[in-house]
Amino acid sequence: VEQAALRAMADEGIAPIEAADALEALTSVDVACVLEREAQTRHDVAAFVDVIAQDAPGAAGWVHFGLTSSDVVDTALGMALRDASVSVLANLTTLRDAVLQRAVEHRETVMLGRTHGMPAEVTTFGAKLAGWWHQLGRDNQRIVDAMGGIAVGKLSGAVGTYSGVGPAVERRVLDQLGLQRDPSATQIVQRDRHAALLQALALHAATLERIALEIRHLQRAEVGEANEPFAAREQKGSSAMPHKRNPIVSEQVCGLARLVRANANAAVENVALWHERDISHSSIERVILPDSFLVTDYLQSKVTWLIDGLVVDEARMRANVAAQRGTIASQRVLLELVAAGMLRDDAYRTVQSAAAEVRDGSRSDFAAALADRPAVVELIGLDRVRQLCDPGWAPGGIAAIFAELDASCGPD
Amino acid sequence: VEQAALRAMADEGIAPIEAADALEALTSVDVACVLEREAQTRHDVAAFVDVIAQDAPGAAGWVHFGLTSSDVVDTALGMALRDASVSVLANLTTLRDAVLQRAVEHRETVMLGRTHGMPAEVTTFGAKLAGWWHQLGRDNQRIVDAMGGIAVGKLSGAVGTYSGVGPAVERRVLDQLGLQRDPSATQIVQRDRHAALLQALALHAATLERIALEIRHLQRAEVGEANEPFAAREQKGSSAMPHKRNPIVSEQVCGLARLVRANANAAVENVALWHERDISHSSIERVILPDSFLVTDYLQSKVTWLIDGLVVDEARMRANVAAQRGTIASQRVLLELVAAGMLRDDAYRTVQSAAAEVRDGSRSDFAAALADRPAVVELIGLDRVRQLCDPGWAPGGIAAIFAELDASCGPD
Amino acid sequence: VEQAALRAMADEGIAPIEAADALEALTSVDVACVLEREAQTRHDVAAFVDVIAQDAPGAAGWVHFGLTSSDVVDTALGMALRDASVSVLANLTTLRDAVLQRAVEHRETVMLGRTHGMPAEVTTFGAKLAGWWHQLGRDNQRIVDAMGGIAVGKLSGAVGTYSGVGPAVERRVLDQLGLQRDPSATQIVQRDRHAALLQALALHAATLERIALEIRHLQRAEVGEANEPFAAREQKGSSAMPHKRNPIVSEQVCGLARLVRANANAAVENVALWHERDISHSSIERVILPDSFLVTDYLQSKVTWLIDGLVVDEARMRANVAAQRGTIASQRVLLELVAAGMLRDDAYRTVQSAAAEVRDGSRSDFAAALADRPAVVELIGLDRVRQLCDPGWAPGGIAAIFAELDASCGPD
Amino acid sequence: VEQAALRAMADEGIAPIEAADALEALTSVDVACVLEREAQTRHDVAAFVDVIAQDAPGAAGWVHFGLTSSDVVDTALGMALRDASVSVLANLTTLRDAVLQRAVEHRETVMLGRTHGMPAEVTTFGAKLAGWWHQLGRDNQRIVDAMGGIAVGKLSGAVGTYSGVGPAVERRVLDQLGLQRDPSATQIVQRDRHAALLQALALHAATLERIALEIRHLQRAEVGEANEPFAAREQKGSSAMPHKRNPIVSEQVCGLARLVRANANAAVENVALWHERDISHSSIERVILPDSFLVTDYLQSKVTWLIDGLVVDEARMRANVAAQRGTIASQRVLLELVAAGMLRDDAYRTVQSAAAEVRDGSRSDFAAALADRPAVVELIGLDRVRQLCDPGWAPGGIAAIFAELDASCGPD
Repeated sequence: VEQAALRAMADEGIAPIEAADALEALTSVDVACVLEREAQTRHDVAAFVDVIAQDAPGAAGWVHFGLTSSDVVDTALGMALRDASVSVLANLTTLRDAVLQRAVEHRETVMLGRTHGMPAEVTTFGAKLAGWWHQLGRDNQRIVDAMGGIAVGKLSGAVGTYSGVGPAVERRVLDQLGLQRDPSATQIVQRDRHAALLQALALHAATLERIALEIRHLQRAEVGEANEPFAAREQKGSSAMPHKRNPIVSEQVCGLARLVRANANAAVENVALWHERDISHSSIERVILPDSFLVTDYLQSKVTWLIDGLVVDEARMRANVAAQRGTIASQRVLLELVAAGMLRDDAYRTVQSAAAEVRDGSRSDFAAALADRPAVVELIGLDRVRQLCDPGWAPGGIAAIFAELDASCGPD
Repeated sequence: VEQAALRAMADEGIAPIEAADALEALTSVDVACVLEREAQTRHDVAAFVDVIAQDAPGAAGWVHFGLTSSDVVDTALGMALRDASVSVLANLTTLRDAVLQRAVEHRETVMLGRTHGMPAEVTTFGAKLAGWWHQLGRDNQRIVDAMGGIAVGKLSGAVGTYSGVGPAVERRVLDQLGLQRDPSATQIVQRDRHAALLQALALHAATLERIALEIRHLQRAEVGEANEPFAAREQKGSSAMPHKRNPIVSEQVCGLARLVRANANAAVENVALWHERDISHSSIERVILPDSFLVTDYLQSKVTWLIDGLVVDEARMRANVAAQRGTIASQRVLLELVAAGMLRDDAYRTVQSAAAEVRDGSRSDFAAALADRPAVVELIGLDRVRQLCDPGWAPGGIAAIFAELDASCGPD
Repeated sequence: VEQAALRAMADEGIAPIEAADALEALTSVDVACVLEREAQTRHDVAAFVDVIAQDAPGAAGWVHFGLTSSDVVDTALGMALRDASVSVLANLTTLRDAVLQRAVEHRETVMLGRTHGMPAEVTTFGAKLAGWWHQLGRDNQRIVDAMGGIAVGKLSGAVGTYSGVGPAVERRVLDQLGLQRDPSATQIVQRDRHAALLQALALHAATLERIALEIRHLQRAEVGEANEPFAAREQKGSSAMPHKRNPIVSEQVCGLARLVRANANAAVENVALWHERDISHSSIERVILPDSFLVTDYLQSKVTWLIDGLVVDEARMRANVAAQRGTIASQRVLLELVAAGMLRDDAYRTVQSAAAEVRDGSRSDFAAALADRPAVVELIGLDRVRQLCDPGWAPGGIAAIFAELDASCGPD
Repeated sequence: VEQAALRAMADEGIAPIEAADALEALTSVDVACVLEREAQTRHDVAAFVDVIAQDAPGAAGWVHFGLTSSDVVDTALGMALRDASVSVLANLTTLRDAVLQRAVEHRETVMLGRTHGMPAEVTTFGAKLAGWWHQLGRDNQRIVDAMGGIAVGKLSGAVGTYSGVGPAVERRVLDQLGLQRDPSATQIVQRDRHAALLQALALHAATLERIALEIRHLQRAEVGEANEPFAAREQKGSSAMPHKRNPIVSEQVCGLARLVRANANAAVENVALWHERDISHSSIERVILPDSFLVTDYLQSKVTWLIDGLVVDEARMRANVAAQRGTIASQRVLLELVAAGMLRDDAYRTVQSAAAEVRDGSRSDFAAALADRPAVVELIGLDRVRQLCDPGWAPGGIAAIFAELDASCGPD
């Protein structure tokens, strides 16, 4: 930023071209020297300016000329956060592609859909993944939007009034660095922009938490429908219990999502600063900005690994459907009874009591329980009852869900 | 939603047209009756369906036909949150207009810009307001984006696979209600959408907090540059101290912003649910969704009132500038010394020590302190020093700031 | 508080005894009248004082004499929060007793202990409940401690310097009201006290969330070891799917715990106020203080109902243990192999591979898989292997756990 | 912990004494080797055990014998958090002593007390510091309480049932390490304990934020009553504006307090884990536990430095009192008028209008404004009015405040 600013001032005829040349010739900064200097000045940017002025004597008087610290720091931060966001978005695309591939692969892998932790109706594993793909798409859009808000800079001086350098220099610098101008800058770029970005990361982390939570549930011993990749020979699931294979990566993801969420909340506290700025935001940003991006990067790579390598047990999925002994057809039977003229509440109670008999073991399956109810037999017939309770039934809407997915993705 | 669904099913030939007509003829719901029924069923939607089926006997068997509770509840919630967002956006426009009007009014009202709570350089009160106008514009965009994400519905049944009604019915219903489809619906509309909306409100509340915090600072007795409107004859500032006039509305705004922020964080915790849904989000949403909108509405009306009626004391603003006795020109002098050839660090220390003499009272003003430094006199001359220290100096960048504002707003 | 203050002033000879008598004769406040008056004064306490002065003319000039609003409001708040805490503590005792009773009942009800959602080793349901009982005891202590911190008042005037009434009056008032003095009062009681109380409630809510989360897991269809009470005939589990019985109360508890947690965080933001107070805490406290207590009360009553009525399926618990086919003995076998001289890592791999054979179905149970490993047979013998893998094995430490519980509770 | 456990097993006759001796002879761990091993096992404790078993061959089979990872990790964590808490408490004592010393020093340094950012009544700077001393004392008690809750360990095995080693071994180990037993341990020490500790740190950080916020306000140029220590010759307040001296340390403290607060909230999310534990808490604890302690340590040292070196400007404090021109006596005048028989509301309006005349400049001071009101003159007399408005008046309650402080601290 210092180089771009001095070049812009040279181009505008404010500073000598030789000074800009001299500063650009300096290709590295002696960090140790800056730190030593900072111990004296107790001001990081002042120390930085002192050192580069010393190392580029041809530019000396002109380094940082007309700039306030935040002109440099916040503009550089805009670049860093934009670049970090680009990286997060690239990871997100990789992850979405992995999810899409597994979604297509499992388009017709029938499994239980569950609500409240209880079997509801059948779905397919592909449909579940398709939903994640859409949600990750919304994460993508939210991060893109927030990145647009943070890819800004400012060189408008101590209180945002261009007292040091004018709008023309700022325009040149920001053009060179590929940033937009913050029209609401005071001494600093406004902090709603940073908060919006961390909010978008927190929400993306929540999506990753949702995926990881699902895997933890599917891997539960009693469910057993999907497992984290496991390096069978070498990995140890537990230091004490050799039989264990635990979804530790998914658990890790759930835990770290809490951190990104907490950081986002703190970032919103940074918005309301005193007057043209106070510097309370700065100390905490040095923790929460890098941590949030590093953790998000880590979470993305872990979840991509989980999706790519997820061991899906289709036989177990089918077995879990069959274990319901037909009760998950309760809604379909209910609807047919109503359509055939039974009062809704009567139909509800009829079906509910039949399901209860299956659950308490007094009936072997739902079709048998329904067959005992004369009204059901009379209204829709035994054959239809058996058809409705067939565990092989696949939901008709899956085609519609994938038609849209295909349309979104184009031919693969 | 129930009416639209039954009409769509009639249009699709699934349900009789007479049933749809009968349900549409029902124009109100007997809430007391629903509550009484819920005490038995312990399920709010089931109770609701029982009661409207009873009150519209012509529709009875077809009410809620093929729907799961969340088809109705989440689609209705999408409408409610969209409408509430429209209201928040309308308030926001009113507030932005108020801010713009005062910005234009105070375009050239010179005052101290302050950083770290200390005088930095002059700005104008209009420039401060212009920054708020821009930030409120970002709030507006973020709420618009989040509203787009929540203006959705779903009728895809118990686990999102269209086991009850098909995509065609869903499309008709959502078209009629003006909603988009949630392609990632499970039993429910996905909760990242609701969280994103509350995040946008929390960030808007933070902007309002920023404005209110500024007013609190400007109204401090020692600053005294702006005051909340005060109904002089009747209002009591303190029950004990009759001399008090306190910025209580601004303080209230700062406090309530914390609530919207806290609610948004809780909303992100609602994203990761079990499988095709668990219902843990529902209980807390009944608190945080209405509270966040009601508080936002309240904050917007209060801040609009503050901006409209803010009593600006221009004389005090000028006096506070004058009280700096020229030291806020330190950067301008520094830059001229450097441009004239003094080493930056030497120039910095020269100017810093001159300012210190003003602060400790050994010099009456900054120009006098500088006049005593031969290098300064030699390099830039006494006349120039006095010119630079003139308290009447107005920042040149204000014109640029307002040129852009004028361009954004068109002719008024 | 106003009555106690006037009585104290009368006792100290500052105010006439007749004034104190007159104020005490006023046994109710005309709230409508106060609200009407507040519309004029825009100050709630000033309005309150005006109205009671009018309704108790004999006390008129002496009502609120020497007091600042916060003397009254914060002292009254200390009483309210103390009383609310007492109520929460009473509920907590009821809940702990319910947990203890079920713990003793299920002291020897063997079930799977699970880590990472995977079977680990056996435990008993009573041991699980005993752990909750201890944790609720810590909640109790934390709330007691925080209640001690909030059961305070202050009558030290506008900035805490006793400019209105002196320490003697304050002492009399607080003695009468059963409160301690806040020695750090400014205009107000300090807000770390309120924050500490909400933190204690948030942590208690987290304990209730932990209990509810466990019940949700145990009720999962695939686990099926415990179920929420369900009013079988009338309740509807789902508006669409009559077969459903869902743990909705436990889910509700998990959701609302997020609210108490969010409120506590906001309360900590209220601690750092300006100078001798700003009033930003007041607006949000009017939401988070009552909401946190009301929600806690609700959660306590729901969790007590859950514990009292929880339907425990001991047969299913035993069946789930048996379904592990001995693999949960892996640690015990490992330890015996090591004790018998096998290298730990060799023993680990031996046992891990045997367990893997059971999991992948190539062996019927763990004892059979181990029997095929000559080193195992040689070192510890077949009989011992079978003994170690016996599903009826109960953990020996349960006795120690309950010995302590018995000691804590005295004779039952 | 591994050493203590093996010694305890030797003492109980379970393991050979030579094994315990061999393990105790190992005085360091080859961390690089552990990391390399972890890359294979993907389990940190299993890698650690493998390496120390290899390095202490005489203990090999007995290292970690009967233990589960969390027996070691959580017991060690209990020691680490206890020791870190002891360090925080020591810092806190140092800080409290510094506050006390300055409180005594400024016992009678009269200054404005301010509420809502407006002058209220006079107080002394010592009274302000005394309040901080008390609040820090509450922080101390809360950290002591939470430390008591975390200074625990457990060796009760995989699910807390002593399946590996018995209560006797646990008791010996915990006695040796100076920890209490967690009677509610599952596989792990329960996480309400860790959350309570971070809550106590967050509240302590809020106290430090309160102190730092006060210093920022007092250092505001317009207030100017206290200043952060500043290394006048070397330090740079701003890279652009040499006249600046900014309260940057206080601002830093305010910012970092937000981090400790956010971390505490995340810690409460760690309480509700699945069954006998899931490991989601572990990943985030590796960030929030060290960060919260490191930041707290840093904040404590900075605030101690601020208090020790704070440059108090008593003359400016007096001048700011005088600048009120008597209006801060409004309550005292009000009370005398009421005591002399004026109706409270009349007295309030009389005094309020007199203060308004001073504020709008139509009267030079409050005494003059009151002197013009016949009722005032008649009821309390001109002499008394002047006495009440004397800027030299010091609050009588200061003595009481310090009497208590003296009693708390003993003779100095």
